[in-house]
Amino acid sequence: MAALFEEIRRSPLLWLLVLVPIVLVAHLIAPTAHTMLFVLSVAAIVPLAALLSRATEAVASRTGDMVGGLLNATLGNLTELLIALAALRAGEYVLVKASIVGAIVTNSLFMLGASFLLGGFRYHVQEYNRSSARLQGGLLFLATIAMLVPSVLADARSGVKDAAFTQTLSLCLSILLIVTYALGLIFSLVTHRELFASESHGEASEKEWPISLALGTLAVVTVLVALVSEIFVESVQQAATTLGITPAFVGVIVVALVGGAAEMVSAFAAARNNKLDLSVGIALGSAVQIALFVAPVLVLCSYFLGPSPMDLQFWPGAVAMMLIACVTASLVTNAGRSAWFIGALILTVYIIFAMTLYLLPPRAQ
Amino acid sequence: MAALFEEIRRSPLLWLLVLVPIVLVAHLIAPTAHTMLFVLSVAAIVPLAALLSRATEAVASRTGDMVGGLLNATLGNLTELLIALAALRAGEYVLVKASIVGAIVTNSLFMLGASFLLGGFRYHVQEYNRSSARLQGGLLFLATIAMLVPSVLADARSGVKDAAFTQTLSLCLSILLIVTYALGLIFSLVTHRELFASESHGEASEKEWPISLALGTLAVVTVLVALVSEIFVESVQQAATTLGITPAFVGVIVVALVGGAAEMVSAFAAARNNKLDLSVGIALGSAVQIALFVAPVLVLCSYFLGPSPMDLQFWPGAVAMMLIACVTASLVTNAGRSAWFIGALILTVYIIFAMTLYLLPPRAQ
Amino acid sequence: MAALFEEIRRSPLLWLLVLVPIVLVAHLIAPTAHTMLFVLSVAAIVPLAALLSRATEAVASRTGDMVGGLLNATLGNLTELLIALAALRAGEYVLVKASIVGAIVTNSLFMLGASFLLGGFRYHVQEYNRSSARLQGGLLFLATIAMLVPSVLADARSGVKDAAFTQTLSLCLSILLIVTYALGLIFSLVTHRELFASESHGEASEKEWPISLALGTLAVVTVLVALVSEIFVESVQQAATTLGITPAFVGVIVVALVGGAAEMVSAFAAARNNKLDLSVGIALGSAVQIALFVAPVLVLCSYFLGPSPMDLQFWPGAVAMMLIACVTASLVTNAGRSAWFIGALILTVYIIFAMTLYLLPPRAQ
Repeated sequence: MAALFEEIRRSPLLWLLVLVPIVLVAHLIAPTAHTMLFVLSVAAIVPLAALLSRATEAVASRTGDMVGGLLNATLGNLTELLIALAALRAGEYVLVKASIVGAIVTNSLFMLGASFLLGGFRYHVQEYNRSSARLQGGLLFLATIAMLVPSVLADARSGVKDAAFTQTLSLCLSILLIVTYALGLIFSLVTHRELFASESHGEASEKEWPISLALGTLAVVTVLVALVSEIFVESVQQAATTLGITPAFVGVIVVALVGGAAEMVSAFAAARNNKLDLSVGIALGSAVQIALFVAPVLVLCSYFLGPSPMDLQFWPGAVAMMLIACVTASLVTNAGRSAWFIGALILTVYIIFAMTLYLLPPRAQ
Repeated sequence: MAALFEEIRRSPLLWLLVLVPIVLVAHLIAPTAHTMLFVLSVAAIVPLAALLSRATEAVASRTGDMVGGLLNATLGNLTELLIALAALRAGEYVLVKASIVGAIVTNSLFMLGASFLLGGFRYHVQEYNRSSARLQGGLLFLATIAMLVPSVLADARSGVKDAAFTQTLSLCLSILLIVTYALGLIFSLVTHRELFASESHGEASEKEWPISLALGTLAVVTVLVALVSEIFVESVQQAATTLGITPAFVGVIVVALVGGAAEMVSAFAAARNNKLDLSVGIALGSAVQIALFVAPVLVLCSYFLGPSPMDLQFWPGAVAMMLIACVTASLVTNAGRSAWFIGALILTVYIIFAMTLYLLPPRAQ
Repeated sequence: MAALFEEIRRSPLLWLLVLVPIVLVAHLIAPTAHTMLFVLSVAAIVPLAALLSRATEAVASRTGDMVGGLLNATLGNLTELLIALAALRAGEYVLVKASIVGAIVTNSLFMLGASFLLGGFRYHVQEYNRSSARLQGGLLFLATIAMLVPSVLADARSGVKDAAFTQTLSLCLSILLIVTYALGLIFSLVTHRELFASESHGEASEKEWPISLALGTLAVVTVLVALVSEIFVESVQQAATTLGITPAFVGVIVVALVGGAAEMVSAFAAARNNKLDLSVGIALGSAVQIALFVAPVLVLCSYFLGPSPMDLQFWPGAVAMMLIACVTASLVTNAGRSAWFIGALILTVYIIFAMTLYLLPPRAQ
């Protein structure tokens, strides 16, 4: 436990953990104070996500490369998954889908762009391993395309809506995506692990946690994230209306920034230390994981947890945003070098997305 | 003739030639047994396509580099052309267009992906000539875009349909595409032949055929493919209904796999021999040829052979599939290196297309 | 003045300046002879644009690198801006938007393709600085995407039209684009000027103009372009109807070719001198400038000059053309090498666009 408190003492972000009991108590006392609960739950998830990420790495570093890699790969987006599962149980499928969209767009535009910008402020031109970045960019492109095929083809079928067809297709597609994800794990952890070597998140200088502490923290924090996510999902609709924010903005922008905060801290630190390979790996790898793992798992879970099965049909604007985000990330990382303005331009595209979603008239979604 | 029989004896695929007389006789005896005729004609076209490809190469190797290259370039997709011409004569324009879509998608996703996968099973990482692959990828992108401009612009014009406009545009576009194709032949066979040097299909170890045998085989097999294609086109609609397969699936997936079987055998063999340049060249070159040569020739032929002129307007889902296929092939071959998982991911996109077409409710196309 | 007359004597294109007084007088005498005025004004703008470009460079070369670069960057598309402003004042927003579309498409397809083709006729294969071209291609892609986000998302929102939303979004977007453009100037003129070094338009061999002559020419020619543009905008609608040309064709193709004539002369000359870096820089840089500077400036100006505010909503076919143009330019310049056929293929895409716009039934736009 000493290691845990030491960790919390050192990292100001984790001081926000004090909000966790506050939000839980506030929910008991005033379950209808939606705006307050929304703000508190958002602020409480950030340090929980950071701690979850730290605990995952601690477990991973104790269980050997293979199992550790597997853990990092499956639990890397655990916060996003837990929030989406809470929304799934509440039947808020629009929010679930918005959080998938947001995770892909935020990882491949905001995290990548801000990494380039922050790195570019310190270094004139940053070079990074092009062949590895190109591989990641290719994976992201193919993974996103694969996830979007039904939406693209269905859009294109001009108006024909067939719920049974969409549902069957989404189910088959989800199974196929998970199989592809499993193949990808074999690729990155077994047959071609040397290509992904630079992606180890753990810093050598960090103190190692005992395995019992790591597992215990992982379990407790997972439960806490799940609890706070429930409160978040419950309050978000009302709060958004009160604050005049569109639900699309909350789902795509707020949830993704909150859920990905921990990874962003790592990616930005790496960029400022001129390890842009690592930043690109975290940003694109996380986006790939959303498309190939989190999204299909949510579809499968909807059969057990949700009021009705969820499909993988996204609204056309979401398809456009995801395609633009993944093509942008693929094209940009293709170059293997970066300067601050490239980062600024990628962020501009992200800001334009956010601005559009913010201005979108509520009824139009 | 001894060389021909020797060839047949050596290649088990060609033993299927025995199905050719069977399907012709079956059609005379039971012209309404659509399902049987469909299965037999599909199975009979595969060895005919292989033999056609072998005969084309034999003629090409006897006529010098220039004429030979021209022959390979124009007759390389002769099977696809003959099937499409049979469909054209029957007025089955949906099937004609589906076979164009299928040829592009199958060449640039299935053939490329399976080559990468098969090569990747044997070699850890395969490097290939990036600048030549990038050239091919660029050609494919531009050729597909050129063919799709009317569909993209017309889609975009939101509901305005003007048959005369579409027809005039398709005719002008077809002439322009064929002129571009002719320029491409001058480029690859005259001014810049050294860039395409690695693409010779013929294996030095194969026995050369006498020119008379080669020409004779070419003529006879062309007639046989045309005859069997007629039976195929006649039976496909009924058979698809009986088997519960959607016509879109038959047109895009089955016809393309059958028509391209011979080239796939060459591309896969090259990949397994670590000649990925050759595989990429066959796959992308063949897709380019469909867009710049086969498609416009079919439009022009429709004025003479079909009941009415055919246009180059594709249904929106087809446009999406072709764009995704050519952007994927361009981006992926850009890297110049491959491993098995890249192949698996490309194949996943293809399988998702096939799955979507298979599940598509028939009335929705 | 001697330097100016020497310049005119040497350059046959500038002899067309004699048309400027002719068109001004003709407009006074016969203000309803629309077809004649249209043809005369188009022909008069070409030499004016060339002279404007020459004067801008002369001023730039006298004012030091920084201010000079800024001048070139802001006045590089002054002709396009003046024509669009004339259309804006007349409330011809369709023409304004068409000229934005045309400038992007013409720069990134026609200017680039023709440069590759002309260079390729003289040199077997032309290599150019890939990392700089890739940077330019990335900028163009991101700039175009940024400008198109509202159109893409609005299209995708299937039919929901909300004028207030579109207008607010366009205004915010315009401010954001101009900020991004300012950041880009800091990037290219201050922090990373060495990456753009090869782009200096001025030829060392040209005679320098005195600063007073340069400034005077700039002022006088700007006024003349503005006057002739008024006549052009006034006559174009009637003339197009008389000549049977669609307004879309005039806006996208004619205006852009006329406005960009001066830059094309520079880009083509560079290509023929094997300085393809320079051609690519002029073509893509000019397209970037349209998206990040000219388009948002026109939106802002519409609040003061136009009858009503203009938005940045483009019709779907225009979005498709701009996306295709910028993806094509990004992908093609990625290769870093060129041969004549690449140029021919890029030009083919441009010709297909022109052909489609020419054939488009007038009512369908």
